Amino acid sequence: MKAHPRCAPCLLARVHYEAALSTDDPELQQRAIQAGIRWLNESFSINTPATYISTEIHRRAYEVLGDEDPYVTKKKMSNEIALKLLPMAEEMVTSTKDDAFRRSVIASIAGNTFDFGVLGFEPEEQFDAYFMDMFKKGLDVDDTDKMKVLLDDVLYLTDNCGEIVFDGLVLDQIKGLGGKVTLAVKGAPILTDATLEDAEETGVGKKADRVLTTGSNAVGIDLNEAPNELKEALKNASLIISKGMANYEALSEYDFGPIAYLLRAKCEPIATSLGIKKGWNVAILHI
Amino acid sequence: MKAHPRCAPCLLARVHYEAALSTDDPELQQRAIQAGIRWLNESFSINTPATYISTEIHRRAYEVLGDEDPYVTKKKMSNEIALKLLPMAEEMVTSTKDDAFRRSVIASIAGNTFDFGVLGFEPEEQFDAYFMDMFKKGLDVDDTDKMKVLLDDVLYLTDNCGEIVFDGLVLDQIKGLGGKVTLAVKGAPILTDATLEDAEETGVGKKADRVLTTGSNAVGIDLNEAPNELKEALKNASLIISKGMANYEALSEYDFGPIAYLLRAKCEPIATSLGIKKGWNVAILHI
Repeated sequence: MKAHPRCAPCLLARVHYEAALSTDDPELQQRAIQAGIRWLNESFSINTPATYISTEIHRRAYEVLGDEDPYVTKKKMSNEIALKLLPMAEEMVTSTKDDAFRRSVIASIAGNTFDFGVLGFEPEEQFDAYFMDMFKKGLDVDDTDKMKVLLDDVLYLTDNCGEIVFDGLVLDQIKGLGGKVTLAVKGAPILTDATLEDAEETGVGKKADRVLTTGSNAVGIDLNEAPNELKEALKNASLIISKGMANYEALSEYDFGPIAYLLRAKCEPIATSLGIKKGWNVAILHI
Repeated sequence: MKAHPRCAPCLLARVHYEAALSTDDPELQQRAIQAGIRWLNESFSINTPATYISTEIHRRAYEVLGDEDPYVTKKKMSNEIALKLLPMAEEMVTSTKDDAFRRSVIASIAGNTFDFGVLGFEPEEQFDAYFMDMFKKGLDVDDTDKMKVLLDDVLYLTDNCGEIVFDGLVLDQIKGLGGKVTLAVKGAPILTDATLEDAEETGVGKKADRVLTTGSNAVGIDLNEAPNELKEALKNASLIISKGMANYEALSEYDFGPIAYLLRAKCEPIATSLGIKKGWNVAILHI
């Protein structure tokens, strides 16, 4: 996906958000913002892939802040809250056996609640109520039946901390249906995204047959920075499951498939690009 | 008031907002955004007055868009809705004679609802319900009693269209208490701010003893662009009444007084600068 005009203020707002998480010093916050503005001035265009702009803006901000993980506290908190919610979510998923795969997908999208700093989307409190609402809302586009016959050898690209706990429920279902899963997490901290540490801490890594990383802290995934094993998995998977907006932004620039995008469309540009509406929860299969 | 780190994404979001009001062409929206980024890259600093940055970013965006008033439709709509609400507001103000001045001030701050494009503050519908809520909320800082003895020769600086209709209720009260009023509107279209045309169309101009303009489309007011009469009025008024955030941002850089800031603090930087909380409705007198 290419950048949208609206991405520029949103990216800059997120730089401010992470700067404020990292430091109370307005001078240092300012320098992070100025670095972001400078990069936007060099790079911003609606003909440029969105993640090319977002990866570098956050790298520059982190560098100025001297902070390799401004979201660390929020990430830990997300994992903790999600683990507390897990038994309830697990029961909701498995209460109807026939429908458990679909329900696990819904739970994993509801888990996408654990996101911070997206403009106009800041549910910092009452996760459990929000999670329940999202779960009840269900899917606005539901290709789970078509996905179900493609689960032989799945590559599962995770998104946020917290959310990864509910991704574990989808992994349970895939395994239960006889499929194999390669789990891919970020190679280094970026935004609220899950890394190897989170896959281990939450126990989700153990549910996968194999855990890979994206090889770097690129937003979504940057193939130039990805290990060969992951590139092979992208080519050879029976189904790629891509969680969240950033993975969609990145993977929609390539030609891999079949690929299922599981996400909540939290902004207009993503929704427009997918031909859906802002606020929709979707499991869309692109063959 | 100097710019806050958070002002940069907010200004850029507003540039996108007005670009989208002005055109559906993403290329043209992009050029407006890029012009905004370029100007932020030249100017953005927390040591720079906020309105120095905001005036120029909007001027550049308007120029790129080839549109001297992207908000024109919203402004007309605001005036129309406000005029429909006026009889109800008038009754609410005058129902208690003793308290009518304070109530008119509350109505004029409730009228500050008619604002568009401030990040995270977009009540585009249900103005009447919102206006009533704001009116009932009352004032979180209330210096109206201290203002009441300073009404001899008031300079009243307006903010938005729509809002100006309720400013008329304050003018009625000042006149009723024996004071004179000079009304100052913007010299040319900027954002949703009221101009001479709006003062005339809404009938509020007629309630003043004199109507001046700020001499330009500067956000708030720029003394370098203001006519001498207005500069004299700023020096000699028994009380300056300054409506809204932008006038506060601009006037807090000068030394005029006594000055009453009537506003709803819609963002953190303004709230922090005034020593209040975001979301407060205030009538604060600075002597």
